[in-house]
Amino acid sequence: MGIQLKTLGFWQAVLAEFLGTTMLVFLGISAAIGNGNSSYPDQEVKVALAFGLAFATLVQSLGHISGAHLNPAVTLAVLVSCQISVCRALWYVSAQMLGAVLGSAIVLGVRPEAVESLDLNKVISPGQAFGMELLLTLQLVLCFLATTDKRRSDVAGSAPFGIGLSVTLAHLAGISYTGCGINPARSFGPALVSMDFENHWVFWAGPVTGGIMATVLYDFLLSPRGLDLTGRLKTLCHGVEALAVETEPLVEDTTISYLEKALNTIKRPFSVSLSCYTTYLSFSLVYST
Amino acid sequence: MGIQLKTLGFWQAVLAEFLGTTMLVFLGISAAIGNGNSSYPDQEVKVALAFGLAFATLVQSLGHISGAHLNPAVTLAVLVSCQISVCRALWYVSAQMLGAVLGSAIVLGVRPEAVESLDLNKVISPGQAFGMELLLTLQLVLCFLATTDKRRSDVAGSAPFGIGLSVTLAHLAGISYTGCGINPARSFGPALVSMDFENHWVFWAGPVTGGIMATVLYDFLLSPRGLDLTGRLKTLCHGVEALAVETEPLVEDTTISYLEKALNTIKRPFSVSLSCYTTYLSFSLVYST
Amino acid sequence: MGIQLKTLGFWQAVLAEFLGTTMLVFLGISAAIGNGNSSYPDQEVKVALAFGLAFATLVQSLGHISGAHLNPAVTLAVLVSCQISVCRALWYVSAQMLGAVLGSAIVLGVRPEAVESLDLNKVISPGQAFGMELLLTLQLVLCFLATTDKRRSDVAGSAPFGIGLSVTLAHLAGISYTGCGINPARSFGPALVSMDFENHWVFWAGPVTGGIMATVLYDFLLSPRGLDLTGRLKTLCHGVEALAVETEPLVEDTTISYLEKALNTIKRPFSVSLSCYTTYLSFSLVYST
Amino acid sequence: MGIQLKTLGFWQAVLAEFLGTTMLVFLGISAAIGNGNSSYPDQEVKVALAFGLAFATLVQSLGHISGAHLNPAVTLAVLVSCQISVCRALWYVSAQMLGAVLGSAIVLGVRPEAVESLDLNKVISPGQAFGMELLLTLQLVLCFLATTDKRRSDVAGSAPFGIGLSVTLAHLAGISYTGCGINPARSFGPALVSMDFENHWVFWAGPVTGGIMATVLYDFLLSPRGLDLTGRLKTLCHGVEALAVETEPLVEDTTISYLEKALNTIKRPFSVSLSCYTTYLSFSLVYST
Repeated sequence: MGIQLKTLGFWQAVLAEFLGTTMLVFLGISAAIGNGNSSYPDQEVKVALAFGLAFATLVQSLGHISGAHLNPAVTLAVLVSCQISVCRALWYVSAQMLGAVLGSAIVLGVRPEAVESLDLNKVISPGQAFGMELLLTLQLVLCFLATTDKRRSDVAGSAPFGIGLSVTLAHLAGISYTGCGINPARSFGPALVSMDFENHWVFWAGPVTGGIMATVLYDFLLSPRGLDLTGRLKTLCHGVEALAVETEPLVEDTTISYLEKALNTIKRPFSVSLSCYTTYLSFSLVYST
Repeated sequence: MGIQLKTLGFWQAVLAEFLGTTMLVFLGISAAIGNGNSSYPDQEVKVALAFGLAFATLVQSLGHISGAHLNPAVTLAVLVSCQISVCRALWYVSAQMLGAVLGSAIVLGVRPEAVESLDLNKVISPGQAFGMELLLTLQLVLCFLATTDKRRSDVAGSAPFGIGLSVTLAHLAGISYTGCGINPARSFGPALVSMDFENHWVFWAGPVTGGIMATVLYDFLLSPRGLDLTGRLKTLCHGVEALAVETEPLVEDTTISYLEKALNTIKRPFSVSLSCYTTYLSFSLVYST
Repeated sequence: MGIQLKTLGFWQAVLAEFLGTTMLVFLGISAAIGNGNSSYPDQEVKVALAFGLAFATLVQSLGHISGAHLNPAVTLAVLVSCQISVCRALWYVSAQMLGAVLGSAIVLGVRPEAVESLDLNKVISPGQAFGMELLLTLQLVLCFLATTDKRRSDVAGSAPFGIGLSVTLAHLAGISYTGCGINPARSFGPALVSMDFENHWVFWAGPVTGGIMATVLYDFLLSPRGLDLTGRLKTLCHGVEALAVETEPLVEDTTISYLEKALNTIKRPFSVSLSCYTTYLSFSLVYST
Repeated sequence: MGIQLKTLGFWQAVLAEFLGTTMLVFLGISAAIGNGNSSYPDQEVKVALAFGLAFATLVQSLGHISGAHLNPAVTLAVLVSCQISVCRALWYVSAQMLGAVLGSAIVLGVRPEAVESLDLNKVISPGQAFGMELLLTLQLVLCFLATTDKRRSDVAGSAPFGIGLSVTLAHLAGISYTGCGINPARSFGPALVSMDFENHWVFWAGPVTGGIMATVLYDFLLSPRGLDLTGRLKTLCHGVEALAVETEPLVEDTTISYLEKALNTIKRPFSVSLSCYTTYLSFSLVYST
């Protein structure tokens, strides 16, 4: 961890996450509250395009510096996928939260007088909203992982726009139901400056669960990664850079190899049961009405 | 066939088709029924973007796993084009139907109370609707085949978005007339959960005919494939992978070569008459009013 | 000319232009007349996206077969740029006209009863409409020539979408003023089936002039081509393919070289005066009100 | 400077900037004033798409000739980033101003009678509008610099559309508040032909400050360039081309190296304090209400 913190690149990445989330929240919420005539689908198209293009533009601008997660659910998913270290994930999430609060505060300063609260989220029933947020984030994180999958050589075209337009898609699908959170930082910022935390847990639990589910589905079932447990542990502790350098074994070799074998044995059944659970959850949603 | 079923990749592909169609139907129909103010063109733009971006995002996420057809009409067209085996096509279509039903069921659980039926399709007159669906699917499948044509080296940019935006186009053009099916699974799911099968045949016959017409036009007339009959039969029975391995001849050589010659003789006149039939069909549509 | 007509590829290209223009006109006009609530900007966004995505999708599907001009103004511009032969241009334009009529006839068959005429064009004053159509087509053809310029290596991303979205742009800018023709075939089809040719000349003169101006600007002033006169004449008579084969000189060598020198001398002043004329035209538009 | 003025390419670039800004202003403002029903979000989506696609199309068409800045704020940012010479920047800005006036004059000629003024800008309060314009331009210029950064090899997809859609984004976010200038030339043209310069300074100060801030953030903090001071001075005086040729040192060697060391010492603290200032500015916006 110490090695990472010393590098300039690490702090540039944290700054990029902070700056990016600030801009994302500022641009998206400005668009959402700017026009008072907001009951027709054209408002939803406008907001969906604003959030999607904001994400796309910022991934285009900052992707080479920090990976441009701009979303704690994405950062957690990438952590579960063992592509970044725990330390980096913590700093990223903190930067995102701070950025979202700053972005919301800026919007608070320029908002039209008629606008009381910046909170875009609404809740049909907490259970339904949780399921909706889960599925919307699942497709976003699935798209993120598949698009940035370094093993693929068939991804042509712009990755930022591929990911950004899946944010637009999530808004088109879900904005009428929950206001479309899919990003805990994006929901936390306005909630804090408006001091309105009713049902706020939904916009953390839904996206985080959806993001982790997407990772497990993609990494273990649809397109399993071959990276061994040792490598994964190294990445979690020291970052991806650590894989390149020769280091001493983290734990006693035999323990690792035993653990690894055990994990490899359970990972497929685990993923299959997870899929079944997703299906069950979906059905329970249907009958909950 | 047996060989295919044993591979992990085959079942991952079937799972991807199931998951993809579930998400496609869930995302598209959620967007379509979310806002009650649905009589202005902004609703059509919203739904067109939702279905198009859903297709694009899912092709981006799952294309390298299953090819991401997510549509029985596309699977049939690819089968007629001899690019997958019959066995794979059957499993794909089954997975798509199941996925569409699950997706519709999820939407049923979160729908606003005012929404009675999920059935988005409407029918001007069955004949006109059939022609409309045929032509809309024809352009979609033509775009799918041309974009994924491995013989081309001039396809730059993102294939998923090329195909996804042709779904958006189909909705922009046809949503006022038939609600825009162009995907039998997409029409079947809501019809089943709403138990409303009136004029349902149109949304099978139109897309399937359009898809097959597009394949014949592209594969035999506009950009004929050189793949010989033996190869095509092998692909249909054993999948594309079979072409790589050396196998014994399927049928007696002389029969094959005779059949092949016969087919080669009739394929161009056949395509030309098909084109004429399409033209005739179009005109008959005009005078049917 | 004789050689070209014998090749299969030539007729496939003509068929592609016919099919493409049919689909373009059918898809675009269906979208334009489908919804009766057509006085708000959302209708303009819908129609602009429909025409733009139709062009993009069809260029994606047919571009490798015929170049996918789908527009007589584009074909004429490419002819003036000496990239196709006169014979090919004539066949292309004929196929486009026929296709547009067929496409309009199909729409006539499925149109809602309330729609009287398919003619989307309106005319502010003929002079203003001419200037508007000229400038809208100028940007489209400039984009077409720049995007398909084989000397460039910096064109990343999808050419079909680059060109298609410039069609969308033309509609967003001009649809409130002239209905946005920018394509004589697209204007001719509906005019013929509705038998309404009032002010029809504007939708030929404007786009054709704009297209030729764009070619002259791009080919002679902004990014001059080095192709010599002999090569240009060969292309005009025998197509691009003729440049590859060794042929006898078309005219006496000394005459050619004299003519070439003369043309090279006048081409820059000519382009400059053309630019001045465009500027003058623009200003005269301003004072004509 | 003398050398540059003599080359044909230089004047072609200036012409391209003139032509591009003319078309950009003509296309964008035509779209903005064409439809009188302009109080719903669909109008904002239409205008945002028009300006964004106009920028994208023109960058696609003219980017290889002049770089297609089409915006004094972008030209200044690129100058501060030492990628063009002072002389070129001056000619570009002049061409852009002239082009914007011509474009506005053309729109004046075709405008509907009900439209009194072409001025799209509105001002909430000058301070807020300044902050809004600053932040909107900051994201545009950040995207421009990151997308055209020659050190990156990970930019796939179309650069023109990446940049163009960030213009769309700026309009979606800011059009309800300030009309979205983000381009001093775009604001100056309509202001001149309408003779309405109230609060006009905001649309110069905001974008120019935002553009310069973006450059400093990107070039010195997020992704520092290694180009030495000598090289930067050479570029500013003689253009990028001068870097290739061997020239005598501009100033006495020891002075340069001293200056360079001094600048290198202060550049990081300077950037950090700039970031702090931006943050402060944002907060002051909040409390100014």
